[in-house]
Amino acid sequence: MGTIEAAPLPQPSRAEIRIEAVLAALADPVRLDIVRALAPRPDGIACGEVALTVSPSTRTHHLRTLREAGVISTIPLGTRKISQLRRADLDALFPGLLDGVLAAPH
Amino acid sequence: MGTIEAAPLPQPSRAEIRIEAVLAALADPVRLDIVRALAPRPDGIACGEVALTVSPSTRTHHLRTLREAGVISTIPLGTRKISQLRRADLDALFPGLLDGVLAAPH
Repeated sequence: MGTIEAAPLPQPSRAEIRIEAVLAALADPVRLDIVRALAPRPDGIACGEVALTVSPSTRTHHLRTLREAGVISTIPLGTRKISQLRRADLDALFPGLLDGVLAAPH
Repeated sequence: MGTIEAAPLPQPSRAEIRIEAVLAALADPVRLDIVRALAPRPDGIACGEVALTVSPSTRTHHLRTLREAGVISTIPLGTRKISQLRRADLDALFPGLLDGVLAAPH
């Protein structure tokens, strides 16, 4: 029996990531909070661990927006979903963008 | 008689620039075209010199959105309006952001 590798939820490939979609996904205070929470955790964290003052359905909506834009990757792991920033992809496509966003006063 | 210095159109001070507003202003293909046209021209260019496939009123709208977000500065000079990227302000607040956006494939 081999290891069962969980597949990430649908997401754009690196080549499919568009700068307009990334910027629009980041242009929201709640989604910026999610990105800030994920930034120091390269191995990813369970969505529920991000402290947010929004409802679970709103949280799900924001996570989906980030995933579909190519900002985060989400892997279902049993009953949990582990999300992580796609830093390698974003840094390769838009070098400096993520660091600049994370440096912003808030 | 001294020199009359033209004042820029209303714009946020550096301290008033918000990352969410900057990202939202940049998240549009026409506005990205404007930013790309202004990037290599630190002294600014007249709005009409930016080659765009949109109507004059749409152009004005996009320029205003960029200005109100703090991305560009616009100075009326006689019958012309000269716009320039606020690179010093953006680089100070969000180091890397503008370079990452300008590096994006398009």
